[in-house]
Amino acid sequence: MKFQFWSVGKENESYVDEGIQLFTKRINNYYPATWNIISSPKNASKMEETELKNAEGDILLGYLKKDDYLILLDERGKQLNCEKLAIKIQELANESRKNIIFLIGGAYGVSKEVIKRADMIWSLSELVFPHQIVRMMLSEQIYRACTIIRNEKYHHK
Amino acid sequence: MKFQFWSVGKENESYVDEGIQLFTKRINNYYPATWNIISSPKNASKMEETELKNAEGDILLGYLKKDDYLILLDERGKQLNCEKLAIKIQELANESRKNIIFLIGGAYGVSKEVIKRADMIWSLSELVFPHQIVRMMLSEQIYRACTIIRNEKYHHK
Repeated sequence: MKFQFWSVGKENESYVDEGIQLFTKRINNYYPATWNIISSPKNASKMEETELKNAEGDILLGYLKKDDYLILLDERGKQLNCEKLAIKIQELANESRKNIIFLIGGAYGVSKEVIKRADMIWSLSELVFPHQIVRMMLSEQIYRACTIIRNEKYHHK
Repeated sequence: MKFQFWSVGKENESYVDEGIQLFTKRINNYYPATWNIISSPKNASKMEETELKNAEGDILLGYLKKDDYLILLDERGKQLNCEKLAIKIQELANESRKNIIFLIGGAYGVSKEVIKRADMIWSLSELVFPHQIVRMMLSEQIYRACTIIRNEKYHHK
């Protein structure tokens, strides 16, 4: 099983990059994990909200393979605590899933088609955070889930 | 009204420090905001969980003034969305509160006495995050709440 973190937007800002690298490296001790930062279309600033979401949605759907398990991050989704997240990941491993994609959408979220394609919609919090910080929160939580699955001590830096 | 962020534990790790500084500086454009990193007792590693929480609790209660409004961060608290957080902060300003203390407890949380003293218990998420990352999430959310209160555009970096 592999983890892929997809995020629509800009490359990591300096204030989050070290943390994201740190936790992604740690996840790699359990499962291969990579980031895919997907740029918005070049004329994004001129597009209406729905137009932009559809354009980004087409790019995302083009990247997705049929058997990819897509977990969409959205504050309107279902919240999980750390133990439930670990159980979910363990279940996916038991089902011999190949690719688990964690998707952070663009500035306005994702298109209806992408929501429809998602196998799970996961909310980290009722609060909205900058997508840059969501990347760090996500990588940290997946690392934490891996330590829970293996019943290991969480490594504080 | 002033914001004080109190956190029991170590100084900011490098992977979160830039972000915390960034958002705290922005909050200062609205309300004075300062951090108080409170070290655990020197012999903390030899203490039992309750003993340590009580020792840290005594330090915290010693720092608190009678009219300080204490918001304790704890995942078992009440969640708010961004708008409700902004409304809460606006209410505290309307009540002419002097000091709003946001408290992130130690490794095991806080003592019963501190929980009893808290005016509000606020959960950022059902998930548990490292307290270092909670500091960044907290400062970002308070900055965001300030922009909502003033009806301003959120400044992405």
